[in-house]
Amino acid sequence: MDSEKLFPGTCPVGRGLARVGDAWSMMILRDAGLGLTRFDQFRTSLGIAPNILTRRLKMLVEGGLLVRRRYSERPPREEYLLTEAGRDFLPVLQVLGAWGAKHHGEGGVSRLVDTETGRVVEPVVVDRETGVPVRDMRLRTELPEG
Amino acid sequence: MDSEKLFPGTCPVGRGLARVGDAWSMMILRDAGLGLTRFDQFRTSLGIAPNILTRRLKMLVEGGLLVRRRYSERPPREEYLLTEAGRDFLPVLQVLGAWGAKHHGEGGVSRLVDTETGRVVEPVVVDRETGVPVRDMRLRTELPEG
Repeated sequence: MDSEKLFPGTCPVGRGLARVGDAWSMMILRDAGLGLTRFDQFRTSLGIAPNILTRRLKMLVEGGLLVRRRYSERPPREEYLLTEAGRDFLPVLQVLGAWGAKHHGEGGVSRLVDTETGRVVEPVVVDRETGVPVRDMRLRTELPEG
Repeated sequence: MDSEKLFPGTCPVGRGLARVGDAWSMMILRDAGLGLTRFDQFRTSLGIAPNILTRRLKMLVEGGLLVRRRYSERPPREEYLLTEAGRDFLPVLQVLGAWGAKHHGEGGVSRLVDTETGRVVEPVVVDRETGVPVRDMRLRTELPEG
């Protein structure tokens, strides 16, 4: 994964993709968001080859999205937990899922449910201050000053 | 790109990643959102190898995110335009960019500005009905009925 070299510069999308820019990494984070923590759990859930999983977990730890924690000394066993940055990434996946459900939901897809109210949640991206969906805004990109 | 085979099933995140599950595809969509339409524009903007760009554009057309349109007959020239589904994907990139800016913004990154008000926009994912940030909700995944 050399996308950090591929996407330098001032674009924050590129900065994000440099850390989580492939499908496996996003699926691992999705699973971590669902509560999975252990190598074998990820492997089974995703059907991913162990060497690829090892590489992706390493990348996510280096990128600051997961942290590795030893939970047993004998035998030595480690688990992977979401960091604050990792937890912050979950809404990206949720809105990606909303896109998938809208445009490729044929045959039914799983849904997000608020555990408190039991309501189905529909993730949408809005401007934090005004609450207006960014989809409806005319936006331009402004380079940083410097 | 065989992630459609890798991520079948009912997870809408997997469904989305099957269509746009790599960094190049997302960067092409970002550029399309900035108004780029032509092969050479994408190539120059991204510094991407022509054969990879050709493959990714084909995938995005097949995935229904871009449409190819001939804009000149002599010489034959084609451009790539965002579809409705492609335009719907841009907020995913914008919130990915917000994550990149928050967690890897060192040295300054570009920002999204509302062309009407001149205000900097901060994309955040909320539940469409309640406006509550999904980051603050306790969510579970519910499998589709059937």
